[in-house]
Amino acid sequence: MRVVELSRFRKSKAGCCATVGNFDGLHIGHRAIITELRRIAEVHGLNSVLVTFSLHPRLVMGKEEGDFLLTTLEEKKRMLQELGTDLLALVDFTPKVQDMSPEEFVEEILIKEFNVRWLVAGSNHRFGKGGSGDICFLAGRLEEWGLCLSVIPPVQVNGLAVNSTRIRKFIKDGDVENARTFLGYPYRMEGVVVKGEGIGSRLGFSTANLSFPENKVKPKDGVYAVKVNVEGQDWPGVMNIGRRPTIRGQERSFEVHIIDFQGDLYGNTLGVEFHKRLRDEMRYESEEELSEQIKRDIQEARRSLQPLC
Amino acid sequence: MRVVELSRFRKSKAGCCATVGNFDGLHIGHRAIITELRRIAEVHGLNSVLVTFSLHPRLVMGKEEGDFLLTTLEEKKRMLQELGTDLLALVDFTPKVQDMSPEEFVEEILIKEFNVRWLVAGSNHRFGKGGSGDICFLAGRLEEWGLCLSVIPPVQVNGLAVNSTRIRKFIKDGDVENARTFLGYPYRMEGVVVKGEGIGSRLGFSTANLSFPENKVKPKDGVYAVKVNVEGQDWPGVMNIGRRPTIRGQERSFEVHIIDFQGDLYGNTLGVEFHKRLRDEMRYESEEELSEQIKRDIQEARRSLQPLC
Repeated sequence: MRVVELSRFRKSKAGCCATVGNFDGLHIGHRAIITELRRIAEVHGLNSVLVTFSLHPRLVMGKEEGDFLLTTLEEKKRMLQELGTDLLALVDFTPKVQDMSPEEFVEEILIKEFNVRWLVAGSNHRFGKGGSGDICFLAGRLEEWGLCLSVIPPVQVNGLAVNSTRIRKFIKDGDVENARTFLGYPYRMEGVVVKGEGIGSRLGFSTANLSFPENKVKPKDGVYAVKVNVEGQDWPGVMNIGRRPTIRGQERSFEVHIIDFQGDLYGNTLGVEFHKRLRDEMRYESEEELSEQIKRDIQEARRSLQPLC
Repeated sequence: MRVVELSRFRKSKAGCCATVGNFDGLHIGHRAIITELRRIAEVHGLNSVLVTFSLHPRLVMGKEEGDFLLTTLEEKKRMLQELGTDLLALVDFTPKVQDMSPEEFVEEILIKEFNVRWLVAGSNHRFGKGGSGDICFLAGRLEEWGLCLSVIPPVQVNGLAVNSTRIRKFIKDGDVENARTFLGYPYRMEGVVVKGEGIGSRLGFSTANLSFPENKVKPKDGVYAVKVNVEGQDWPGVMNIGRRPTIRGQERSFEVHIIDFQGDLYGNTLGVEFHKRLRDEMRYESEEELSEQIKRDIQEARRSLQPLC
């Protein structure tokens, strides 16, 4: 287990309040839990600790592969710092941990390692071997362990429970607007500008080709209004996601035109926020037709991003 | 149901956080729950409501009778006001209420009457018909009801769980010091000064005979160091509790000597706090011997109450 001390951690405090889970996306449901965690920490003079896995168990177990995650570990760490969490505990999902009973998980990790005094959990939370530990299990042992417990039901938006699976699906379907509502912030990726020959560039619209982290969920092919962060400054942009034939077969390409921006970005890392899906990729009869469409995309992206950039 | 609006109640607030129970004694375990209730109310802009029964169900059902309660309704109301609770809901334990399922209790009383959004409960809390509703039951319905839940385990003192039954037993055994530790305050009763011929008076120690509320638990016969509140001022005192033969048979008598106090108190209401058990009632060979003992009692009461009066 690796423990990351975030900005507010104080060794002197009497113990911890903790929450356990994957927290992929740190969406508005997660934030309700973390907000409660922070309040309890403040009121009771405890450090707050978020216990998670260094790699998502579904990836460790091979139940998922490729672009699956909503947040990388680095993103999670940064967001938790903003949310005022004091400690981030990264448990490796080793066979030993996979085999831990709920009792062992609470006693060996939460109580022994962190002197946890208060647990905060989602009402559907399950943990321990095969997910055999739930809220009922915890409630029955609180007196023995001297633990308090706060249970937060799933946050709902338009009658739908907010959860990571649903948000991943929104993104895969290109519905970045609902993803944003359920996440509480626009879906983001950081990408490095790599070599690539964009169609846009050939038509006079300078573009940057981006390489995004492999394990992050990617929006469906199409054209998006995006906010691009270049060295701390936000710019409006249009991103085209598509599939291009390469020597190694078909590859996804992420090509962004940063509106009004001039300069060489090769090798830079850009932050991209997905705000609106503008349209599907389409085949055009002529380069003129395509060029006109790109102009309309730029106009629409500028309009929809106006208050932001 | 009768709803008492305590000082901080605001109609404008979005809803309530609630706790349900008898809360007899409002001991340190109850206070841990009420402190959490108040914190949640403040943070989430809710009114806090304590839902209790206008008469203890064990008295309604005839499972207990006579001097059973640690707190009268008036005492509860006053203490809840001090603890910063906004509403006190008094449910009559009618056959209809006795027959309510846990679902009905939550839906008909908590949600419908008070728009409850957050529940705070002790980890052993049971409610609804035959006590069939518990924390597990609640946890399974939180999502449906959109409720949050905080669960507080029993507070422990020297390895003993704090609960009303244990405190009643301390008092009945004369152990007012442990009662005080577990309650978080000295056990109190308010009594009216009635006619009565005390032994003390005959020996030159002026005494007041008190009539206490019938349903309050009474300390075991014996002699106690007490703090007596007379019209807002605290005095040290010695109280003798014993059984005296009357025309109607044997009756308990509560005779207090207020140290250094002079004046007629007949008809006044006095507040009595039990701080220390000094001794058993004893038979004395002569009035001189008894008089000497009373002098020693006064000395010891004065010493043990010195920092308080």
